[in-house]
Amino acid sequence: MPRIRWELLVLAIICWQRCQTDVQEAKRSLGHVTVVVVGGTGDLAKKYLWQGFFQLYVDQVGKGHTFSFYGGGLSASEKGTPVLFGILKDLACPPELSSERCALVKEQFLHLSQYQQLKSNEDYEKLCQQIKQQVAQEGMTEAGRFFYLSVPAFAYADIAEKINSTCRPPSEAWLRVVLEKPFGHDFASAQLLDRKLSGQLKEEEMYRIDHYLGKQVVSKILAFRKENKKLLDPIWNKHHIERIEIVLKETLDAKGRIQFYDQYGVIRDVLQNHLTEVMTLMLMKVPSNLSKSLEILQNKLNFLASLQHIDSSNAVVGQYQAYNVEVQEELNKTKNFFSLTPTFAGVIIHVDNAQYEGIPIFMISGKALDERVSYARVLFKSDVFCVQDPNNVLCKTKQIIFYLGHSNLQYPAILVSKNLFKPELVSSGDWKEVTEYKDVNMLGLPLSDYYIQSPVVLREAYCELISQVFSGRKDNFISAEGLLASWAFWTPLLESLSQVYPRIYPGGVSNGNLLNFQVRGNQVAFSHEAVVNVINPGVDSNFQIMQGKYRSSEMISAWPQELVERLASDLLQAAQEAIVEEGQFHLALSGGSSPVALLHSLALDQYTFPWRNTHIWQVDERCVPHTESGSNFRVIHDLLLQQVRIPYFNIHPMPVLLTQRLCVEEDGGATLYEKEINKYINASSFHYILLGVGEDGHTASLFQDTKLGSAEEHLVTLTESPIKPHQRMSLTFTAINKAKKVGVLIMGKNKHELITQLSRIKGESVKYPITKVQPKNGTLTWYIDYDALLG
Amino acid sequence: MPRIRWELLVLAIICWQRCQTDVQEAKRSLGHVTVVVVGGTGDLAKKYLWQGFFQLYVDQVGKGHTFSFYGGGLSASEKGTPVLFGILKDLACPPELSSERCALVKEQFLHLSQYQQLKSNEDYEKLCQQIKQQVAQEGMTEAGRFFYLSVPAFAYADIAEKINSTCRPPSEAWLRVVLEKPFGHDFASAQLLDRKLSGQLKEEEMYRIDHYLGKQVVSKILAFRKENKKLLDPIWNKHHIERIEIVLKETLDAKGRIQFYDQYGVIRDVLQNHLTEVMTLMLMKVPSNLSKSLEILQNKLNFLASLQHIDSSNAVVGQYQAYNVEVQEELNKTKNFFSLTPTFAGVIIHVDNAQYEGIPIFMISGKALDERVSYARVLFKSDVFCVQDPNNVLCKTKQIIFYLGHSNLQYPAILVSKNLFKPELVSSGDWKEVTEYKDVNMLGLPLSDYYIQSPVVLREAYCELISQVFSGRKDNFISAEGLLASWAFWTPLLESLSQVYPRIYPGGVSNGNLLNFQVRGNQVAFSHEAVVNVINPGVDSNFQIMQGKYRSSEMISAWPQELVERLASDLLQAAQEAIVEEGQFHLALSGGSSPVALLHSLALDQYTFPWRNTHIWQVDERCVPHTESGSNFRVIHDLLLQQVRIPYFNIHPMPVLLTQRLCVEEDGGATLYEKEINKYINASSFHYILLGVGEDGHTASLFQDTKLGSAEEHLVTLTESPIKPHQRMSLTFTAINKAKKVGVLIMGKNKHELITQLSRIKGESVKYPITKVQPKNGTLTWYIDYDALLG
Repeated sequence: MPRIRWELLVLAIICWQRCQTDVQEAKRSLGHVTVVVVGGTGDLAKKYLWQGFFQLYVDQVGKGHTFSFYGGGLSASEKGTPVLFGILKDLACPPELSSERCALVKEQFLHLSQYQQLKSNEDYEKLCQQIKQQVAQEGMTEAGRFFYLSVPAFAYADIAEKINSTCRPPSEAWLRVVLEKPFGHDFASAQLLDRKLSGQLKEEEMYRIDHYLGKQVVSKILAFRKENKKLLDPIWNKHHIERIEIVLKETLDAKGRIQFYDQYGVIRDVLQNHLTEVMTLMLMKVPSNLSKSLEILQNKLNFLASLQHIDSSNAVVGQYQAYNVEVQEELNKTKNFFSLTPTFAGVIIHVDNAQYEGIPIFMISGKALDERVSYARVLFKSDVFCVQDPNNVLCKTKQIIFYLGHSNLQYPAILVSKNLFKPELVSSGDWKEVTEYKDVNMLGLPLSDYYIQSPVVLREAYCELISQVFSGRKDNFISAEGLLASWAFWTPLLESLSQVYPRIYPGGVSNGNLLNFQVRGNQVAFSHEAVVNVINPGVDSNFQIMQGKYRSSEMISAWPQELVERLASDLLQAAQEAIVEEGQFHLALSGGSSPVALLHSLALDQYTFPWRNTHIWQVDERCVPHTESGSNFRVIHDLLLQQVRIPYFNIHPMPVLLTQRLCVEEDGGATLYEKEINKYINASSFHYILLGVGEDGHTASLFQDTKLGSAEEHLVTLTESPIKPHQRMSLTFTAINKAKKVGVLIMGKNKHELITQLSRIKGESVKYPITKVQPKNGTLTWYIDYDALLG
Repeated sequence: MPRIRWELLVLAIICWQRCQTDVQEAKRSLGHVTVVVVGGTGDLAKKYLWQGFFQLYVDQVGKGHTFSFYGGGLSASEKGTPVLFGILKDLACPPELSSERCALVKEQFLHLSQYQQLKSNEDYEKLCQQIKQQVAQEGMTEAGRFFYLSVPAFAYADIAEKINSTCRPPSEAWLRVVLEKPFGHDFASAQLLDRKLSGQLKEEEMYRIDHYLGKQVVSKILAFRKENKKLLDPIWNKHHIERIEIVLKETLDAKGRIQFYDQYGVIRDVLQNHLTEVMTLMLMKVPSNLSKSLEILQNKLNFLASLQHIDSSNAVVGQYQAYNVEVQEELNKTKNFFSLTPTFAGVIIHVDNAQYEGIPIFMISGKALDERVSYARVLFKSDVFCVQDPNNVLCKTKQIIFYLGHSNLQYPAILVSKNLFKPELVSSGDWKEVTEYKDVNMLGLPLSDYYIQSPVVLREAYCELISQVFSGRKDNFISAEGLLASWAFWTPLLESLSQVYPRIYPGGVSNGNLLNFQVRGNQVAFSHEAVVNVINPGVDSNFQIMQGKYRSSEMISAWPQELVERLASDLLQAAQEAIVEEGQFHLALSGGSSPVALLHSLALDQYTFPWRNTHIWQVDERCVPHTESGSNFRVIHDLLLQQVRIPYFNIHPMPVLLTQRLCVEEDGGATLYEKEINKYINASSFHYILLGVGEDGHTASLFQDTKLGSAEEHLVTLTESPIKPHQRMSLTFTAINKAKKVGVLIMGKNKHELITQLSRIKGESVKYPITKVQPKNGTLTWYIDYDALLG
């Protein structure tokens, strides 16, 4: 019996609700679709994929397409075939089918499916030959080929090459290849993988799947935001949002999957993809039209680009206690082997734009925790004062929760506190309002305090996404650019965590409060002391700040962070003193890398710094436009001036660009700056000049070979640097030595040699310009970190 | 029996714990103190003052001073004497005295007291004569005279004059005059009162009492902050504080006191003084030394100066329903009389400094509310993520409460959430830690979740303050400067509320949620629609925005606020469009008064405005330094640039000050600005130019008499204004008419005449420069408010 008649028979017997009117149409063939699940007998295929394809078949049969399904694996046919059919026979019936109907459709589905060994080139050639033959034999046209690669990522490039070289469909038919994460393990590897794949497949042929995007709640986030735009717009910003939490807690551990898991860990496995996608949908700009893929993509990229850089100070990591033994066993390691792979992570993220800046975004995921739950919530500030009844609903928590399921609520839902607003339903047909409340507490409020909406029919994410691939809809898949943008954000954190020992936690409820963590400034740390042993106690870095003498002047020494904090607090004190005396504080800052941490500390920690009365000057500047990233001013601007409220008039960049030329002697930039100094500063004596020192002993932009000549009488001069950009503008020693206070900040092991040299020289040395810094009536203080001091 | 022996007798019989060792010393007289309570038979005297003086006597007797007490009143002696002694006989015994001892001391106290009519000049002369005689008769020296003016404020100046002219003590003795609020009813009247009083009394002789400062908790706020400085410093700022509440709720109404109350209302009665003092103590800089009065005063003044301006948009006001009838009765008014005096107020205050900016401070007080309670609390942001147990103490509310008493807790206390830190006791002796917890809820947490400290012995505020006056300690009294600073802050609000109809509330528990209010932007509004009738429904200002044509161009018209919001949102749209096309938005802003509200709206409401890609230019500038308040740039700077994060490079002030001269032709400022425009802006065509119009029809700084001549070809020119400052720099019509979009904002009744004139003129008119605004390839939109349009 030819295949086509079988399908018509099924159609005749079972009467689909949704396609009753399509019967006529069904007779006109829309072409044949071949589905190949590479890795078709694997875990994922067994658990989700075949169910998804079965549902696809159920949905599509009778609508004009014909199908064949291949499950591919490395085993030979004799071994693979029974495994595949074992899986297929166990497929569940979609709830919309009666068991009778289901049995019929399933029999048909099985009939259309077969196992295929896919190992060698020949295997692929054979597969493709077979597809071609079948189509020809049955007189069908091909609509498309649907490859689902459910295999380890290292095999992608190879399989893509095979598909490209031997298995492309005829030109009028589509080719769609679905790839499962991981897509690389950092930015570089993702880029490499992308390059390899894009040599074989076009971007529109690749469907990078993140099954979170197929989850019904996740896929409705943008729609929810759009439907409720008028109500959300006024509150969806830093003025109203107190914090955001994006959470995926698992009770499962990684046992049995260590081979894979240990290479990745929780951040690569969950945060970089699933949770980042959820965050993006929650905070990206809502596109003007939800079907404009390009606009959605652009808005996603814009959002990802606006995230603040994170590193290990923005994360806490943990590892469940049994994990390391599992690693030793599954990876055949000795008892001395310790894995640093985190199975728990809490990260704090900030968005660097006017809408969201300052809102802490907590992203949390972990294995072996106390409960299985996944949600994202936006918690709003309480902006109400309940004069007489603080328990009034008005004064209760205001939040919006995107609840993905499990734990208290067994269905996915979007919940909006009733004291916030009554939301529009995300879409009329397939979502409904829930009005029967179970007696459970949902993140601080009883269910009855929420407006709740939920899908009418629950669908598995894979099911949904497979159907979207079939329809050629790419919005809910990861684009190459989106992928790289996400890795660009996560990679610095991953790198800075590579040597961090995770906190060990026992697993399950006994974790207690061990994993709670706390914001400190823009950073996070565990709230409790660890009570379980850590893998390695690490070096005790709790050195005290050391005070002493260096080259006959005051010296402060400490570990970098403490040193910078001390310097920042000394600057604060100097500022306060100057302002009491003169009403103003004139501070000159150097360029280079050392001040970066200081600028951070000044901007974020010194909240009482009297910026309104502080004038910012430059010690030296490279002759590049101020807007360029190589400009010293640009660094001060981005890290400090844009972070604090300092009057425009108090900012004094060195005028390196006048009349469209950079540092031309005749333009008189140096003279101009000198005049400005004379105009604003009492006796041209800065209150504080902060200097750095180069490895060669230069300071400001005054180098060993700098001949000042008559310029020495001036306060500002043009100089030449031995390294690019050569041209510089700099304060002179005359200006520096007139200052009331001079601080020299020296950090890093690479300065140790210099520190040693300098300590042996008494007085000035032509070789080391820094030795000429000798304030006449002021004080000189050296701030040297332990790395530079001790090497 | 001479007086001195009486006292020694008392001393001999009752053995004071605190003065056992002072018996010897007591024999040496420290001089005589005369206490005069003017208004000594009034309510306050009856309720608090005599009790305070009795306590003073109890504390001081036997320590070397002798006393006499006068209660002064307007009645004749025959009438006043029994009233006074009626009060004195009812004085309560201090808890430290046995009833036996108390009876003895009280008898002595009564013996030392007498009534004195104080009405005419002669009465005062008689009093003073009597004091002198008594001292002389008994051979005592005078230590000082203590006048307590418990009379209506209008009598202060007169009494002060009498004291000054007839009743000053000999030069070696002190004079202390205690004044009760109200000290004026606004800034001007307070200043006037101060001037009158300071003509009679020296500042150090005046003790302006605010009994809140004598409350035990209030008087310990600074000490608490100082003792716990290390723990508080990192969290006492905008990064950690979510909000602050300063609350005084009363169940009492104003009945019987309307004569006084209706002139003042709740803001003058409670907020301007008591609650402002509490706020100041909570947020002022902690002085380096708590005994340095000058530093404390300076820090208080600094804090008050840093408060953001408030007006009626920052407050909600209410009046309990029975109030107006009480007013009609007590003030003999007709049934048509309506008082606008508020008996309830909720105000939101912001501090404009780096430490606290953005923290909402809710200040609430009202009569006829549901409970009597008074507290101030600092609520901290939740900076913890409780991974497994959201009910963990760590994740609970974090707050510090200064609890003044009543309601749930019957004693004053300072409470600190246990998850915050364990505070130091404010002082070792007279405060104790409370560790027995009543089962009550205190602002969201059970008492057991707090560290609590409370005074060992409870003392009435008046008692405390009377004792401080006696000791000459002025820290807890209001200084003239502090008083004026507080009035300077409150007066604008009071003025802008003078015509606002308070919401009527029924009183007591039936107020329900009627008085709850809500933050909107930086402002507040009641959360619920009023359900009780308001006095006067007022004019319905809910006009729709009107769109039409004016002088053949687009016109938008609305009430001022809606108009400004619409313009701001049109600007946002223009910005977004420009940025999509060119990556940048070039906006030129005018000076003058019209744009002020717009700048506010742009800074505060348009949180998605793409400032990072916006360049700000000036339409015109006055030839004054940018730092001066008359500078247009200064206005733009203060209202907009300091409020948003806009890159330094994107700000383009007009260079009116070059080489230390203002707008000198030869300096070429106009040419320089033109060059800058050419450099940054495509075809020198601004994306948006916002103009205003003067009543004389001028726009930018282009006046009727401005002769541009060849300058018309230029983009920027120097001009002369008919009004000061005469010199201006301005864009030319050439520049304006090149713009892509031009908006003209016209607001206020004083522009109505002009609007009418302009509507009658077709095309250009030499008389009205604004008519020359005719963008060549761009659009012109008029934004005219209803006041200007309809007159």
